[in-house]
Amino acid sequence: MSIAPGKTIVGFIGLGVMGQSMANHILTAGYALHVYTRTPHTAEKILSKGAVWEESVSMLSQHCDVIITIVGFPADVETIYLDETGILNHAKKGTIIIDMTTSSPDLAVKIYEEAKLSGVESLDAPVSGGDLGAQNARLAIMVGGDEKTFDAVLPLFQVMGDNIVFQGKPGSGQHTKMANQIAIAAGMVAVCESIAYAGKAGLDPQTVLKSIGTGAAGSWSLNNLGPRMIAGNDDPGFYIKHFIKDMVIARSSAGRWGLKTPGLDLALSLYQKMAEMGHDNKGTQALIKLFE
Amino acid sequence: MSIAPGKTIVGFIGLGVMGQSMANHILTAGYALHVYTRTPHTAEKILSKGAVWEESVSMLSQHCDVIITIVGFPADVETIYLDETGILNHAKKGTIIIDMTTSSPDLAVKIYEEAKLSGVESLDAPVSGGDLGAQNARLAIMVGGDEKTFDAVLPLFQVMGDNIVFQGKPGSGQHTKMANQIAIAAGMVAVCESIAYAGKAGLDPQTVLKSIGTGAAGSWSLNNLGPRMIAGNDDPGFYIKHFIKDMVIARSSAGRWGLKTPGLDLALSLYQKMAEMGHDNKGTQALIKLFE
Repeated sequence: MSIAPGKTIVGFIGLGVMGQSMANHILTAGYALHVYTRTPHTAEKILSKGAVWEESVSMLSQHCDVIITIVGFPADVETIYLDETGILNHAKKGTIIIDMTTSSPDLAVKIYEEAKLSGVESLDAPVSGGDLGAQNARLAIMVGGDEKTFDAVLPLFQVMGDNIVFQGKPGSGQHTKMANQIAIAAGMVAVCESIAYAGKAGLDPQTVLKSIGTGAAGSWSLNNLGPRMIAGNDDPGFYIKHFIKDMVIARSSAGRWGLKTPGLDLALSLYQKMAEMGHDNKGTQALIKLFE
Repeated sequence: MSIAPGKTIVGFIGLGVMGQSMANHILTAGYALHVYTRTPHTAEKILSKGAVWEESVSMLSQHCDVIITIVGFPADVETIYLDETGILNHAKKGTIIIDMTTSSPDLAVKIYEEAKLSGVESLDAPVSGGDLGAQNARLAIMVGGDEKTFDAVLPLFQVMGDNIVFQGKPGSGQHTKMANQIAIAAGMVAVCESIAYAGKAGLDPQTVLKSIGTGAAGSWSLNNLGPRMIAGNDDPGFYIKHFIKDMVIARSSAGRWGLKTPGLDLALSLYQKMAEMGHDNKGTQALIKLFE
């Protein structure tokens, strides 16, 4: 299938912080866009710009050539794709389905295999880059599945992201995202400890960031979330509840392989403590609270 | 004192990986450079370029207007500055001494106070940026002491670094460097776990780095040491033995303030395990061995 603006009908399910911006880029690029979400009011803005509302997942599935999903949790992904009213029971043969939720690699493989049975092509394509990356079409998109399917939808990925990499067989996109989250996990603990140390030492943490942000200690987390920590800004760029979900998935795979992940385990335990304290809807940078 | 090439005599003690490059920049900038090091053969290269050899710390101290030290451990710093044959017993009144070793903040305060008694001005000015940062004169230099002394020697810092920040009272440079090392510590664990996970998942870790290096998981460690980990290159940009030294100093301060640092503690315990295995002269990226 050849995908092009003005020709391809793109279905989009999930209009959260990330989905809003991503769907908007697709519409702006000239694709026909059909949307569905469980919370219809979140669709109002994009409908006003010309998107078409679908009454259900199954209706959307019947009308679209490419279907993109980005929802909350693996259980949502499973429902949307595999339920009787789900995508795989209603999509036309030849449809390309792309789950951009950060979800279970095993589930991605299962969806890929089920899709094949219906003549539907499946990619797992989670993203990184947060709210700002989505807004500015600068997401990293990490993709697993068949390479020819990847090649076919690349133009669509390019309106949402700027670092688009095919990682291999089905599930590889999700595994890459897990590697991404693992690299962040213990790193967030490090950032919190560093900023807390600076405060306790009587330094000005913002001046400290000027020294340490550009060298060997520099990281996206330190330079982007560090200032929010210092300012006491807990607004979610990335929700603690979603980060916990990701870390649980990553640990599950690691555990099966016998891979020890003490840093990930530590980060997960601290974020779970945050959730128990009622902070699960805050941004991941709120972890600094445990070090104050 | 006004500091300028062709006028100021700069003493330099410690010609290790970092010191070699830093001393070279000072000489190249046109300053008279006098050097001393415990291992004279390491001075041969810079002497051939016009530096002057001093037979001892005390001789060097008598001849120089500014004295820079960058050695291995706090015990070395203490000896060089505070021993009977050390800098403070032999430096002229008005000398500026600058310790660029990553060392104890408490020791930096002690040297500052002792120096004042002899009419000598002291700065603690540890650096970040590693071997490449030193070679390319792109070090981050974090400085504690009196601001007027900092202002006086700024031209000298500028020939070695490009991110030079005055952090505050004596010891503040060292505390800033501790915040830097703490931000790296648990971050290194995260990088190792991420790369090990990618390998276990059957992904190509180098392709994974292309996806995750530019987004929210991106860090200097991931992008610079990750490829060395994947290539099995253990060459020291930064020695494990020195990183352990730094983490021990940082924990000591944190402990005194009652600041919990579980990420730092974890990283320290893993690096101590590496040292027990005989890897203390390898680069910090060798930590990946514990995850293979």
